[in-house]
Amino acid sequence: MAAESADPTRIMVAVNQSTIKGYPHASISSSGAFEWTVKKIIRSNTSGFKLLLLHVQVPDEDGFDDMDSIYASPADFMIMKHRDRIRGLHLLEYFVKQCNEIGVACEAWVKKGDPKEIICHEVKRVQPDFLVLGSRGLGPFQKVFVGTVSEFCAKHADCPVIAIKRNAAETPQDPVED
Amino acid sequence: MAAESADPTRIMVAVNQSTIKGYPHASISSSGAFEWTVKKIIRSNTSGFKLLLLHVQVPDEDGFDDMDSIYASPADFMIMKHRDRIRGLHLLEYFVKQCNEIGVACEAWVKKGDPKEIICHEVKRVQPDFLVLGSRGLGPFQKVFVGTVSEFCAKHADCPVIAIKRNAAETPQDPVED
Repeated sequence: MAAESADPTRIMVAVNQSTIKGYPHASISSSGAFEWTVKKIIRSNTSGFKLLLLHVQVPDEDGFDDMDSIYASPADFMIMKHRDRIRGLHLLEYFVKQCNEIGVACEAWVKKGDPKEIICHEVKRVQPDFLVLGSRGLGPFQKVFVGTVSEFCAKHADCPVIAIKRNAAETPQDPVED
Repeated sequence: MAAESADPTRIMVAVNQSTIKGYPHASISSSGAFEWTVKKIIRSNTSGFKLLLLHVQVPDEDGFDDMDSIYASPADFMIMKHRDRIRGLHLLEYFVKQCNEIGVACEAWVKKGDPKEIICHEVKRVQPDFLVLGSRGLGPFQKVFVGTVSEFCAKHADCPVIAIKRNAAETPQDPVED
């Protein structure tokens, strides 16, 4: 049996914003996955782990909020991009603050793109020991329309993947919401 | 953030015998999954976890070894069943011994049947916090013929599932072997 390695176990947790409350609020499934990791894996062994918190922003997701905005120059788009970035950072701040309170090392960053593709790309780049993903626990009918990041990553990510389903009690009336 | 629960995290690990060396030797993928769990999850926090070791025996798997046996009475079959049981227990002994040496609590038991069905059934019954499975990491073509327990369980088990792929270096020439 291998001895315990000196390096902490590096766990990547992908987090996203609430579809109901929006930034900076975390989705039910991603905050559930984060809390599960702390409670069931890290436990009291805070020096044995490092959390790698990745938030992938979907470029057009905030279109609705921009209905009243007028874009007249490249600078306006810069402001928009800047605002999106700030929102993503506020989401990460929520998780980083919790890591700090618990006393577990962490790194957090934002990427833009298709979450499932970017997550697999970042796994390849940073090589975590495993990846934790929140999952809405959708049925086969719902999946047809929304796709699931966790199923794609379980198949394609270059590291072990564990998907944590939302508690039934926390599932919104429309299970596609999160 | 929830405080650490007093109860240990209960991890079910499904283990099976080597297809090459047979009982009591563990398969490459299941001993890899066990070692990964100890090294990356349990680490030095041995009191924080309990391992639930399940071995599912496939009823006809040992047919070849019985080629020279003659069965003349129900008692002969009793002996055969008994021998199978003993073999399964020797496999578990290997893992239980390691748990004892590391100092992590464990429970181990044998069931008979179709591994994927029995594993999901046992998850429902003992309700582990999550399930660790070794995986041969087969490609799509190989999967058509052999099926994969880990994919079935990831979909159907009533708890989070993490599949640990064999190291490329440990993969036998025929990747279906384990």
